[in-house]
Amino acid sequence: MSHRIVVALGGNALGNNLDEQYEAVRDTAKAIADLIEEGNEVIIAHGNGPQVGMIQTAMAELTRSNPEKYIPCPLSVCVAMSQGYIGYDLQNALREVLINRGIYRPVSTVLTQVEVDPKDPAFLHPTKPIGAFMTKEEAMRLVEERDYDVVEDAGRGYRRVVASPKPKAIVELDTIQALVEAGQVVVACGGGGIPVARNEDGQLKDSAAVIDKDFAAELLAESLNADFLIILTAVEKVAIRFRQPDEQWLSELTVEEAERYAQQGEFAPGSMLPKVQAAVRFAQSAPGRTALITELSKAREGIAGQTGTRIHA
Amino acid sequence: MSHRIVVALGGNALGNNLDEQYEAVRDTAKAIADLIEEGNEVIIAHGNGPQVGMIQTAMAELTRSNPEKYIPCPLSVCVAMSQGYIGYDLQNALREVLINRGIYRPVSTVLTQVEVDPKDPAFLHPTKPIGAFMTKEEAMRLVEERDYDVVEDAGRGYRRVVASPKPKAIVELDTIQALVEAGQVVVACGGGGIPVARNEDGQLKDSAAVIDKDFAAELLAESLNADFLIILTAVEKVAIRFRQPDEQWLSELTVEEAERYAQQGEFAPGSMLPKVQAAVRFAQSAPGRTALITELSKAREGIAGQTGTRIHA
Repeated sequence: MSHRIVVALGGNALGNNLDEQYEAVRDTAKAIADLIEEGNEVIIAHGNGPQVGMIQTAMAELTRSNPEKYIPCPLSVCVAMSQGYIGYDLQNALREVLINRGIYRPVSTVLTQVEVDPKDPAFLHPTKPIGAFMTKEEAMRLVEERDYDVVEDAGRGYRRVVASPKPKAIVELDTIQALVEAGQVVVACGGGGIPVARNEDGQLKDSAAVIDKDFAAELLAESLNADFLIILTAVEKVAIRFRQPDEQWLSELTVEEAERYAQQGEFAPGSMLPKVQAAVRFAQSAPGRTALITELSKAREGIAGQTGTRIHA
Repeated sequence: MSHRIVVALGGNALGNNLDEQYEAVRDTAKAIADLIEEGNEVIIAHGNGPQVGMIQTAMAELTRSNPEKYIPCPLSVCVAMSQGYIGYDLQNALREVLINRGIYRPVSTVLTQVEVDPKDPAFLHPTKPIGAFMTKEEAMRLVEERDYDVVEDAGRGYRRVVASPKPKAIVELDTIQALVEAGQVVVACGGGGIPVARNEDGQLKDSAAVIDKDFAAELLAESLNADFLIILTAVEKVAIRFRQPDEQWLSELTVEEAERYAQQGEFAPGSMLPKVQAAVRFAQSAPGRTALITELSKAREGIAGQTGTRIHA
């Protein structure tokens, strides 16, 4: 039985720098090729934490050493660059594995913007640190000149913080959809998507935000009417009492159970919690939709129902 | 009468930095929207000179200040980043203009690799300077450690040079084709494409090269079976005796005339010459194909036959 599957890749599927990424995407490509080889339609979303951090640091150094020539590079532009950088390695690794298996399927990366609500309450409390550490003077100048939010990280200097609002719509959905319908493999929503928000004139403008990649992948899966959302992470299954003596690994979770455990604080914020929340959101979005949380190398077994944690209605 | 048109945008259509690009793409978007509004299918290719230069400089500074953490960023990765950066601004500007005119047409950017022949004679004589100036010591280290070619630019230091081979194939052609067939507008082959070459095992690997964007656009136009290739530049028409007292602007050129003028040295290498060469190549690739060289604001009149220089068989 074949599925339409959106796969959300985490940082560990991509590595932390140029060398690591080049190697990491090979294993990632094999796991994704397994899913394609079994007849599934696969759409790939991915994170970009270390990559966009590298780009932001590079662009900030450029501005610092050429302040007359280069204005600070907006976060949205850095995300756009990171989609190019990651997509290039990821699509090539996947194409190569597919060809080696005799599967001739076009693989491409679609630059993807994700719309957020400028009234999302997350904008009232920016909490997501991005970019390199700065001196107090540098930080204060950005606060004054560019209205940045900054926080002090004890002993290490200042960092910019941005909001992490929920994704509302995928701007390039028609494009991704057309390619999926044509039987192609698409890499989309890199880094949670380039964050944009509609201004008063209805125009999309870049937004100082970071969109959680699991929520972006979830929205993509809903929008494409996928029946599976696979969130790949560093563990084979979701656990309650994680790393406690009575740790318990979970194979199946109903939406209600997942929500109860989440409320009881079983899942770490910024780590397993958003994954479970995205999974719940997908599972309850329409009948017949299942979310699977597992590790990269277990994706195929997970789809076959042999491992991982399945969240369903 | 509607056409399938590949438009090649030059540097002046994009500006030289973040601020300039944001403004420049608005005019560019209007000119392209004019073509779409008249019922043409439009595919957009573009250069990336200043943009990839900025990214290379930023990435080089990152490596310089964190040599343990970041290896020098390959040119191919910088081109991939530039496609994200430029595509983001360009597609948004175009989408906005189209929506304002009541045209609801998906616009997207496809990360594009262009294959070159590793035996292309251009690799024997790398001539295209890229990236920032370096000290002699920095340059010599890259020669030794990474086998770079470098040249000294009198008084300003050293720069890396790479080859500019001819494009052979567009890797993501099936993707671009599927979107064009679906009636969508596509931005592709940014910066002439991410340069890749096939190794002995038949795998595509990044190539230290810069592909001329006019030749890449020409190949894209041929591959998509377009009937028009528009090369936009800073002048309304091609001239012979350019800037001489007997300067003569040309409205029509046969392939033979264009080749003769080119041989007579009428067109400046690195400027009008590659544009005329790309135009000739397209015009002679199949019956019924016309290349048009004109300036951005004249694209619509040019297609209507009212201005610009047409090159045909």
